[in-house]
Amino acid sequence: MNIVIKNVTALLPNGQDSHTVYIKGQDIAGIDKEPEGFKAELTIEGEGKLLIPGLINAHTHSYMSVMRNCADDLPFMDWLLKRIDPIEGRLTNEDAYWSSLLGQLEMIRSGITTFNDQQMHIHQTTRAVAESGMRAVICRGLVGNEYDKSDRRLLEALEEMEDVKLTDRLNFRLGPHAPYSCGPDYLKMCADVARDKGIGIHIHLSESVSEVEQIKEKYGCSPIEYAAKAGVFDVSTIAAHCVQVDEKDIELLSEAGVSVVTCPASNMKLGNGFAPIPELVEKKVNVCLGTDGAASNNAQNMFREMGLLALIHKGTHKTPTCIGAKEVFDMATINGAKALGLSDIIGSIEIGKKADLVLLDLNSPSLMPNNNLLSALCYSANGSEVETVIIDGEVVMENREIKTIDEEKVYHEINDMLDRLGVISKLC
Amino acid sequence: MNIVIKNVTALLPNGQDSHTVYIKGQDIAGIDKEPEGFKAELTIEGEGKLLIPGLINAHTHSYMSVMRNCADDLPFMDWLLKRIDPIEGRLTNEDAYWSSLLGQLEMIRSGITTFNDQQMHIHQTTRAVAESGMRAVICRGLVGNEYDKSDRRLLEALEEMEDVKLTDRLNFRLGPHAPYSCGPDYLKMCADVARDKGIGIHIHLSESVSEVEQIKEKYGCSPIEYAAKAGVFDVSTIAAHCVQVDEKDIELLSEAGVSVVTCPASNMKLGNGFAPIPELVEKKVNVCLGTDGAASNNAQNMFREMGLLALIHKGTHKTPTCIGAKEVFDMATINGAKALGLSDIIGSIEIGKKADLVLLDLNSPSLMPNNNLLSALCYSANGSEVETVIIDGEVVMENREIKTIDEEKVYHEINDMLDRLGVISKLC
Repeated sequence: MNIVIKNVTALLPNGQDSHTVYIKGQDIAGIDKEPEGFKAELTIEGEGKLLIPGLINAHTHSYMSVMRNCADDLPFMDWLLKRIDPIEGRLTNEDAYWSSLLGQLEMIRSGITTFNDQQMHIHQTTRAVAESGMRAVICRGLVGNEYDKSDRRLLEALEEMEDVKLTDRLNFRLGPHAPYSCGPDYLKMCADVARDKGIGIHIHLSESVSEVEQIKEKYGCSPIEYAAKAGVFDVSTIAAHCVQVDEKDIELLSEAGVSVVTCPASNMKLGNGFAPIPELVEKKVNVCLGTDGAASNNAQNMFREMGLLALIHKGTHKTPTCIGAKEVFDMATINGAKALGLSDIIGSIEIGKKADLVLLDLNSPSLMPNNNLLSALCYSANGSEVETVIIDGEVVMENREIKTIDEEKVYHEINDMLDRLGVISKLC
Repeated sequence: MNIVIKNVTALLPNGQDSHTVYIKGQDIAGIDKEPEGFKAELTIEGEGKLLIPGLINAHTHSYMSVMRNCADDLPFMDWLLKRIDPIEGRLTNEDAYWSSLLGQLEMIRSGITTFNDQQMHIHQTTRAVAESGMRAVICRGLVGNEYDKSDRRLLEALEEMEDVKLTDRLNFRLGPHAPYSCGPDYLKMCADVARDKGIGIHIHLSESVSEVEQIKEKYGCSPIEYAAKAGVFDVSTIAAHCVQVDEKDIELLSEAGVSVVTCPASNMKLGNGFAPIPELVEKKVNVCLGTDGAASNNAQNMFREMGLLALIHKGTHKTPTCIGAKEVFDMATINGAKALGLSDIIGSIEIGKKADLVLLDLNSPSLMPNNNLLSALCYSANGSEVETVIIDGEVVMENREIKTIDEEKVYHEINDMLDRLGVISKLC
């Protein structure tokens, strides 16, 4: 769609200032200079608005959104075995579709335009993405032990890549789940297939102390070394969590060019602690930000995650200077784009990139005074300031009204599946 | 005002269920049973809404709201001396009034109905409270060294108590600032005056390592012991922060019945670390929750603070069970009421208490599915779900429209004072 956003306070890579932004089709086609032959189909008055690049949620499981607030304040094994696993066991493909739509609703409402999804029900996130208008990287979760290219889950993952015909906002990666659920041969097979197909890998690594202990006991090395040995890092890899990593692990991640997705809420909520983010940044690891799934966060809201990221390391390191608002915002945008191999097309407001853009209302108490807005995004905004969201040049939310998804229908379907899934309610 | 809220999902002290709530004048007059002779002036359809007690922000400095996002990611002394102090020096009474209104706007919008304010410009918070409709406890910040009952600041604090005539939503405490800014004689004088006047004390205690070191060096004891020796704990005391406390301090706080206000965002942002909340709770200290001022948080939003409180100690203690959603919600409501000596009138939805009530939209992605809503309030809500706020039986926000304050005028005044105050903008 051809859109002009006039006189908007925009966060460009070089700072915050008033600009006019032209969108032609899917692309940002001009900043302050009207592209030749441009004809606007939609004019947005940007006065009193803030324009930012769409946020990139670099690790989630959108199909788990129905599991929000059903397994909190529990020891990890009770969380998993008594609450999450039984629900997973009952979740149909149709449930996964509605649940992913719920997650996408929350993401759009809070300014996320791209998400990296590890999922278990093929065709369901992609089907929901085709409807919602979001950009996504789809990774079918894989678990196994053998070097077996006829593995059912792998074949499903490859089959799903056909979904790219649904919309060109889709990208794919393989999603071997974790060192403790993927044996060395299986992991090697995943790396080989990913290399053959020219796609990357999205894996959970070094999330908990027990994972590190288990892998060390079984294989005599850390989960990071284990993944490296299996050849995972020979292809583009996004590693979620990396909470329990030592200096040697960090060196390895840095040398191999692995991108780390930190998920602060999830890591705290499950009692795993704090990832060594300042140390990873120091060693030039590309760190990006993710919400993780709703069962372990529980929000799909990157403003909440940016706030946590900006604060917790100041607490653990006892210094207010160890991570700043600019670094945090980069982790939520351009670093995520780099991790996903999409920094040519998303992650910042630049001519030639896709128009994945978010407009916020500057007349919000959390953005007042309108002074240092980058700080405001990390320290006081909560996501509700987001008014309008444009993805791939299409308006998916306008003045807080979702244009693509039937919101009421999603809520109805979600509440309807509670009894069937055995989601416990009224716990308080 | 006489209001009936019909068929609303309400969080009562014994759990979450559907109820009809009757408000007569300022009070909650009936739950599910219409009071005799009741005539509703306003009927609110509660279907699809969640009713909670108004949140209690037990420590803030509302006049500092204009200093939001002007001093972030800086070492403490740069934060204080280069940014905050120069602005404080230029801040007029009129500025403090508008700034407090900005803070109150943000508080109302995110469901806070009562705040405990330590301030420096007498009559300004009270003037703003009379306008906004909020309930507040007003504490004039006091600093000094002598036992001097003619101290200017103290006389101002006592003079301000006359403001109670403005509205009976006002309560007062003395606000001796901190051990490092109040000498032992001055602190003793504050305690004596508070006892004489039958009011309590609101003080900052053991916020930073440097405070503890300084007091130990000067007086040979911890800041907690220092305050106890000065007689502060002989009156009802609310102690903000208590980050750097040891076992002996915790025993002392517990024995003396001191209420501790934890301010997680502020303590992390300034590099002070994490208060030992599970340990304080273990020793039966009444812990409540506060945002602190906007210069050191930066939000005046208790949902953000509840989320932090529910997560960070799970991170530091490496267990998901060390603090739960119910405890966190109590800290944000009834424990705050206890700390302020107001638990007879606020802090929970009970017949006979004041009608300080908040309605949230259950059709919000962060509250979906509508299962365990207490968890949702702590783990996924962000405050934007708040639609309607009733304080002292008056509707101060209805369907997100503030009824008491001219919001646009506040924003205009706030942005207008930036240049004059020397608030640095466009830092990014």
